[in-house]
Amino acid sequence: MVDDDRLLDRVLTDFAALEGKKILVHGGGKIADVVCEKLQIVPRKVDGRRLTDAPTLEIVTMVYAGLINKKIVALLQALGCNALGLTGADANLIRAHKRFGAALDYGFAGDVDEVSLAALNGLFGVADALVVAPITHDRQGQLLNTNADTIATVLAVAASAVYATELVFCFEKKGVLLDPADEDSVIPLLSFTDYQAYKQSGVVSAGMLPKLDNAFRAMEQGVESVRICGVEGGRKTAWEGGTSLTFNG
Amino acid sequence: MVDDDRLLDRVLTDFAALEGKKILVHGGGKIADVVCEKLQIVPRKVDGRRLTDAPTLEIVTMVYAGLINKKIVALLQALGCNALGLTGADANLIRAHKRFGAALDYGFAGDVDEVSLAALNGLFGVADALVVAPITHDRQGQLLNTNADTIATVLAVAASAVYATELVFCFEKKGVLLDPADEDSVIPLLSFTDYQAYKQSGVVSAGMLPKLDNAFRAMEQGVESVRICGVEGGRKTAWEGGTSLTFNG
Repeated sequence: MVDDDRLLDRVLTDFAALEGKKILVHGGGKIADVVCEKLQIVPRKVDGRRLTDAPTLEIVTMVYAGLINKKIVALLQALGCNALGLTGADANLIRAHKRFGAALDYGFAGDVDEVSLAALNGLFGVADALVVAPITHDRQGQLLNTNADTIATVLAVAASAVYATELVFCFEKKGVLLDPADEDSVIPLLSFTDYQAYKQSGVVSAGMLPKLDNAFRAMEQGVESVRICGVEGGRKTAWEGGTSLTFNG
Repeated sequence: MVDDDRLLDRVLTDFAALEGKKILVHGGGKIADVVCEKLQIVPRKVDGRRLTDAPTLEIVTMVYAGLINKKIVALLQALGCNALGLTGADANLIRAHKRFGAALDYGFAGDVDEVSLAALNGLFGVADALVVAPITHDRQGQLLNTNADTIATVLAVAASAVYATELVFCFEKKGVLLDPADEDSVIPLLSFTDYQAYKQSGVVSAGMLPKLDNAFRAMEQGVESVRICGVEGGRKTAWEGGTSLTFNG
């Protein structure tokens, strides 16, 4: 989304029009990859997953917290939406620790420990919209690359202590698909029971599991509604439809 | 300073120890130049001054608002100083316009129109220290590269409406020099009258004039004290000494 200017404009227009306090968590699309390539930083990969080594952390900090974050903030301001861009290090909003593993080096990847509800409330006192880049810190001075879905989840859970909270995950598919090969097989309403069954039978693709686990955890912890969907320009709102989650049924 | 880790640590330790609300305005040292070079962006220059064309604006946004800003924020958090990093676009803190000139194209350079005192006060409610990258916006969605001394000045002037404000400019010299070739010829106390005389007689070097004009303007507009100095590690505070300004005498 962030590397498609027209779609970004559409999404931000709809986001700016949302009532109430709101948070947009973004990644960097393919822009971080492009910058890495131009700077001739060869990504180190473990099991096909990019490792956040020191040079990569510098790039994602530049691209996510600098380039993308400030572009979004400036565009929202132009839409009359008073936005404030930040990372988890700012105002100590999200404290994390470097992921550790006996066998694997995860590099500078962060697992979230805590969201400061005081900081969140304070920030909402200053701006209507928070634009959050998926970077956290360990309070020892180390920035950490952190999964954007996780950031969205922990912020939604923290906000739900004070506000009625809706969490929407936008991604490259139209929703949770019954058949990964068929973009039109979106499951409109996914219950926790069905999810468990789909998981066991392998219907839901492996890549979706962390997102759905995050999503159901969010509902369990107080988020009122969760939806997983794609974004496109030709609808009432850019992130309409997709899959809504429910604990009932 | 930002490209010398040991000195940066020292400066941030002293900054964290300052009492009261505080703002640190930073640039990007030579890091933006290095990134431009690696990305093979050839700087366009007018009269020896780098022009902020579109690719350069992207680089300074990445380096200033991303890399440097978040590094400083994380280091301050580790020192127990609750810092929040931002640009002038965030919370609409600093509104500017693209500099225009009949003969010259200044690129995406911003001249400041207004500081939001409401935003400044709100932000101080969330964090003890604001870390500001010298990027502003025009409220039309355009980010603008803006002189860091100007940012520091306008923020100090805005803060002085509410707080007793001290403004310190740190730069590569030890202070305002009587003889630019002699680092030990620092003028400890510079009155406005003397400044005018030095200006006329050419004692103060041309490069210092915008900084000093900014500085005296800040005092005129309510900032209680202004000092211009270097930073070094071997003193009580890293930014001790230098030149203090006064309107008297």
